[in-house]
Amino acid sequence: MPNPTTGSLLVVSAHAGDFVWRAGGAIALAAERGERATVVCLSFGERGESARAWREGKNLDEIKAIRRAEAENAAAALGAEVRFFDAGDYPLRESPELVDRLVHVYRELAPTVVLTHTLSDPYNGDHPAAARMALQARVLAQAIGYDAPGDPLGAPPVFFFEPHQPEQCDFKPDVLLDITPVFDRKRKAMECLPAQQHMWDYYTDLAKRRGVQLKRNAGPNLGLPHHTLGEAYVRVYPQVTGALA
Amino acid sequence: MPNPTTGSLLVVSAHAGDFVWRAGGAIALAAERGERATVVCLSFGERGESARAWREGKNLDEIKAIRRAEAENAAAALGAEVRFFDAGDYPLRESPELVDRLVHVYRELAPTVVLTHTLSDPYNGDHPAAARMALQARVLAQAIGYDAPGDPLGAPPVFFFEPHQPEQCDFKPDVLLDITPVFDRKRKAMECLPAQQHMWDYYTDLAKRRGVQLKRNAGPNLGLPHHTLGEAYVRVYPQVTGALA
Amino acid sequence: MPNPTTGSLLVVSAHAGDFVWRAGGAIALAAERGERATVVCLSFGERGESARAWREGKNLDEIKAIRRAEAENAAAALGAEVRFFDAGDYPLRESPELVDRLVHVYRELAPTVVLTHTLSDPYNGDHPAAARMALQARVLAQAIGYDAPGDPLGAPPVFFFEPHQPEQCDFKPDVLLDITPVFDRKRKAMECLPAQQHMWDYYTDLAKRRGVQLKRNAGPNLGLPHHTLGEAYVRVYPQVTGALA
Amino acid sequence: MPNPTTGSLLVVSAHAGDFVWRAGGAIALAAERGERATVVCLSFGERGESARAWREGKNLDEIKAIRRAEAENAAAALGAEVRFFDAGDYPLRESPELVDRLVHVYRELAPTVVLTHTLSDPYNGDHPAAARMALQARVLAQAIGYDAPGDPLGAPPVFFFEPHQPEQCDFKPDVLLDITPVFDRKRKAMECLPAQQHMWDYYTDLAKRRGVQLKRNAGPNLGLPHHTLGEAYVRVYPQVTGALA
Amino acid sequence: MPNPTTGSLLVVSAHAGDFVWRAGGAIALAAERGERATVVCLSFGERGESARAWREGKNLDEIKAIRRAEAENAAAALGAEVRFFDAGDYPLRESPELVDRLVHVYRELAPTVVLTHTLSDPYNGDHPAAARMALQARVLAQAIGYDAPGDPLGAPPVFFFEPHQPEQCDFKPDVLLDITPVFDRKRKAMECLPAQQHMWDYYTDLAKRRGVQLKRNAGPNLGLPHHTLGEAYVRVYPQVTGALA
Amino acid sequence: MPNPTTGSLLVVSAHAGDFVWRAGGAIALAAERGERATVVCLSFGERGESARAWREGKNLDEIKAIRRAEAENAAAALGAEVRFFDAGDYPLRESPELVDRLVHVYRELAPTVVLTHTLSDPYNGDHPAAARMALQARVLAQAIGYDAPGDPLGAPPVFFFEPHQPEQCDFKPDVLLDITPVFDRKRKAMECLPAQQHMWDYYTDLAKRRGVQLKRNAGPNLGLPHHTLGEAYVRVYPQVTGALA
Repeated sequence: MPNPTTGSLLVVSAHAGDFVWRAGGAIALAAERGERATVVCLSFGERGESARAWREGKNLDEIKAIRRAEAENAAAALGAEVRFFDAGDYPLRESPELVDRLVHVYRELAPTVVLTHTLSDPYNGDHPAAARMALQARVLAQAIGYDAPGDPLGAPPVFFFEPHQPEQCDFKPDVLLDITPVFDRKRKAMECLPAQQHMWDYYTDLAKRRGVQLKRNAGPNLGLPHHTLGEAYVRVYPQVTGALA
Repeated sequence: MPNPTTGSLLVVSAHAGDFVWRAGGAIALAAERGERATVVCLSFGERGESARAWREGKNLDEIKAIRRAEAENAAAALGAEVRFFDAGDYPLRESPELVDRLVHVYRELAPTVVLTHTLSDPYNGDHPAAARMALQARVLAQAIGYDAPGDPLGAPPVFFFEPHQPEQCDFKPDVLLDITPVFDRKRKAMECLPAQQHMWDYYTDLAKRRGVQLKRNAGPNLGLPHHTLGEAYVRVYPQVTGALA
Repeated sequence: MPNPTTGSLLVVSAHAGDFVWRAGGAIALAAERGERATVVCLSFGERGESARAWREGKNLDEIKAIRRAEAENAAAALGAEVRFFDAGDYPLRESPELVDRLVHVYRELAPTVVLTHTLSDPYNGDHPAAARMALQARVLAQAIGYDAPGDPLGAPPVFFFEPHQPEQCDFKPDVLLDITPVFDRKRKAMECLPAQQHMWDYYTDLAKRRGVQLKRNAGPNLGLPHHTLGEAYVRVYPQVTGALA
Repeated sequence: MPNPTTGSLLVVSAHAGDFVWRAGGAIALAAERGERATVVCLSFGERGESARAWREGKNLDEIKAIRRAEAENAAAALGAEVRFFDAGDYPLRESPELVDRLVHVYRELAPTVVLTHTLSDPYNGDHPAAARMALQARVLAQAIGYDAPGDPLGAPPVFFFEPHQPEQCDFKPDVLLDITPVFDRKRKAMECLPAQQHMWDYYTDLAKRRGVQLKRNAGPNLGLPHHTLGEAYVRVYPQVTGALA
Repeated sequence: MPNPTTGSLLVVSAHAGDFVWRAGGAIALAAERGERATVVCLSFGERGESARAWREGKNLDEIKAIRRAEAENAAAALGAEVRFFDAGDYPLRESPELVDRLVHVYRELAPTVVLTHTLSDPYNGDHPAAARMALQARVLAQAIGYDAPGDPLGAPPVFFFEPHQPEQCDFKPDVLLDITPVFDRKRKAMECLPAQQHMWDYYTDLAKRRGVQLKRNAGPNLGLPHHTLGEAYVRVYPQVTGALA
Repeated sequence: MPNPTTGSLLVVSAHAGDFVWRAGGAIALAAERGERATVVCLSFGERGESARAWREGKNLDEIKAIRRAEAENAAAALGAEVRFFDAGDYPLRESPELVDRLVHVYRELAPTVVLTHTLSDPYNGDHPAAARMALQARVLAQAIGYDAPGDPLGAPPVFFFEPHQPEQCDFKPDVLLDITPVFDRKRKAMECLPAQQHMWDYYTDLAKRRGVQLKRNAGPNLGLPHHTLGEAYVRVYPQVTGALA
């Protein structure tokens, strides 16, 4: 039923990099279907996710520039546009202004699908902060009375992408996405982030693991390839559909 | 992705009647799509769901015959086949034999979608008992080593249909099904159950209510009719898909 | 046991209107018992709950005036006083000042029962914001050291009233209130809100549905009328009582 | 609202003794109000709750006789009748026959309030087994078609009484009962169980602790005595009421 | 504090094989510490976990013999004794007799640590059945009045080992066990199960993943090796300790 | 495994006093082991926890001075250092500045264990506010890019100490700490708080109760003294260990 002629995917990410590891497959799939895909990085992850650069003695501006370039390359590899809000990380501070900027993005892009972090993450408070703002802005953008250009937003489905320690974040996947057709693009995007080389294999392994589970939940009869690769998501609002499947 | 050329819907219901109120729309939709739809009534609801007949002085066999006829009519109105296991109700007793009969049904019908009760219902213990058996039999039918005719079952998705007091049964809908196109058939099926006439309007109202929520979750832009009607479901296993939507 | 000679009901509502749909029965019952009933509307719902007025081209001040008048009429129909904090909606911003104003209200009114929104509502962030402030202010008002006029507050019970999509808000009713004797007044109050005419029947249907459940939980023997009407609530703090019932 | 002219309290207890520690106050209160109070002990707790007697070399029949006598004395001290099903403990085995006996009790006594164990207890499987049977029998007794003498049961409220390690049993009290007026009777009943003398003070301390919490939830203004004593309960079905309090 | 001079590890496993993938590291660690390690396989997994052998045309007895030999080899590689109850699988049926056999094992071995399956597993009902029996038998073995040889059992801690789809089984790890020193033994034990060769790498990858999480929770300062390997567990009863750490 | 040569315990407490009742045993144990123990009191509890002083007519500065002196005495009795942030209570307001001060403390002290309040407490909003800041600061202190002196923090385990109404705060203890050896010191520390004399016995009783539970979970065989005394905790992050016990 939610089958608009032109899809528009919006990914709200706390740090540059998150969208690659956690949602690269979904982004590449959207791009391959000819949909618009836009990533908003609220920060560069300059303080909390750049340990190697700090150890190498880089300063804050240098690190932000590096992270920006990496994220731009990764987004290009996935077929997405990326925008940077440069709101600072560790901590990423929630503010009415930041939420308002997100409302403007929602009104501009009219996303048909939204991806963001989980609302719980005991290892990184920026992730829930990003998710809360992404969700709040989506509701505000729906109100005709909210003062921002563009039409009121519909009710695009929202999915949480997978955190690093899923069980500790109460992440119980209820959607398993087959990313086999685009995994090469996801791998290339990951390789745009050389400072985190140890993650390339880690997230390749995770894709295999989620692929095994995907096949287990699809049954043996669906003709999925032996090496199915997957990403896991949690759906936030009820699915609206014309047929159970 | 779970898009087999020929669908087969299986509904496992504790009592004759449950499938009409709670899943009549889904059944009619499947039938309209040309899929096979089969309802298994584990009991007739002869003791626990036939208060009026008892008050009128009917005996057990008479009540079972009445309930059977009503359920057959309702199933026909929906376009489904119905089978009766006559296992007794209040209580419906779980047994290896009953589970085994269900395994045989799974192997015979190779359902692509399964509907049943919630696992919790403090008002009616037969409902969870039916659900536990439906789920157990589905897993057993998947094992090649289980001794029953037919091929091992795939992994058809399972949905819980809506109980009478949803919140008390921890029923948090995550799928809202648009039944507008077939609601007339559902209403006709309900009217095959004359002893529960007060339920006709009750479940029509519920369809309106779920329809309002469905539209709220679909957004205003999707062109749904003003009087959308819905049924609510809970998905048991993760959804397997090739595209987030 | 909590049986003070003079009751005082306080309803903390995010928007003008909420108190009518969700708690109109409880308010009218309190008024009929001769208790004082006071509604605090933190905002008018001018941006987020006035779509029709915006589409008709009204401006912000006009909309606020309309909503104020409607709420005053509805409160009068229920027998309650209403106060407007005009704190803005979409978003309703939590602030120490707003909480402090609520503390003053608690100290002034010494409520014996408090009603507010649920702490979770993925469709409307203003509702949980109102609830958090209502709960925080109640605790602050209990402290003798908090600088506000009046005696320290006791520990009035708090109830959450029903949100629009109860299951999505983790609303599991544990109190079902019989509003049959005052339903006419609730209906009249609803009719004071002409812009939301489609809600009149919607909430009448909901009252029937909760009434059916109320009778189901009360047993057939209590002599409740056939058309019992109800409102559902969630109790926040343990009930204190001298007799189990 | 649930205010029948003649109350009838039914306590379903896995072992002789449970009802004293966990619900003695509620029983004594009912008795003082002139209501009928009946305790069903499904077993004597002869294997699992009689360590001292076993260490003293008593045999099974002797232990059962001791436990029976103690429970009869305690029940008398509380003003209740006690019945023994002698169904065996450690494990207490659920069976259709045992449930049927309980249905007969429900039909005979027409309880207006039911007390039993929690559904979860990782320290003692007999407790949840008793609770499951008590709840199942209550539902069966409501059905006119269930073959047992007497009228169909209404829908008496059910409360879980407090287990020994409440948090581990997911026991979150939502009703705090003031047992100050009858605590002397509860203490006397406890003293009828000499083999568990260390429990007398333990459960007196618990009553103080629950009393402190009771006062905290009732507010300082209600005139409760300094040494209020309490018992904690969990309500299983929604409360039905004509007034929020 | 639970620091007995001679440890005794008991693993209760639904099928032959489970203990290798899920708890091989914990078993090997116990063996290396000189403790006794005993595995009870309630069934051979002959119907539900032997798809390949069935496809190769083996019959039931042949499959059971194969699985037995494999499990014996794997147990030997880990340093454990293995016992087979041959109770049948798919379904593994709970029975008083089976529980009683387990009580005898508890009394004989006096385990100081117990490992078993999770209580929830929507993919395999045998796993929760095994866990329920393991937990029930542990409680029964504690009662002096239970008729079985040996002293009453203490209260050994119980841990659930990791299921195949942890999130779907509500498995939220709260203990991460460093199995780096014995991983070679676990790998050798896995290689004793040639029919499931694809699992060797799968569970090696999982050990890496749990190792990464282990290091993340231990902090960078503890001198753990780069390639730490882990197993995840859930603790069932509160930890008893003389020092927080 | 987390066995650093020199331990450092950090307790983050909303009010002066909290650390005595809730964690006095853990503090005294650390001190007796020769570890450093530091308590940060974010406020004095001057408004919300000093009812008696207010009733006696003391002013704000006097009350803060009294509470400071009491807390210093109690900390000394336990063997701990105490620091006061004087951030105000009722409400304790979360702020970036306060979190930053805590980050500096983490970097300075490099705690190996952290204790704080639960994240939920419907009776006192300051407690969760303190916990949120303590947890956020811990994560920030781990980032090399966070601008504060000292080395990045490791990942010290965090434990929530017991709130006043544990079940209402979703406090399900998973660690029971044996404080028998230091209970005399805890009692002396409690007696440093004369305004709350009624709490001395209350928390002594609680220690007995937790001690009884501790013994129940440790089994009868471990040689614990008859009058074991305990404190209950909830572990926030998974335990990292080299041996299950």
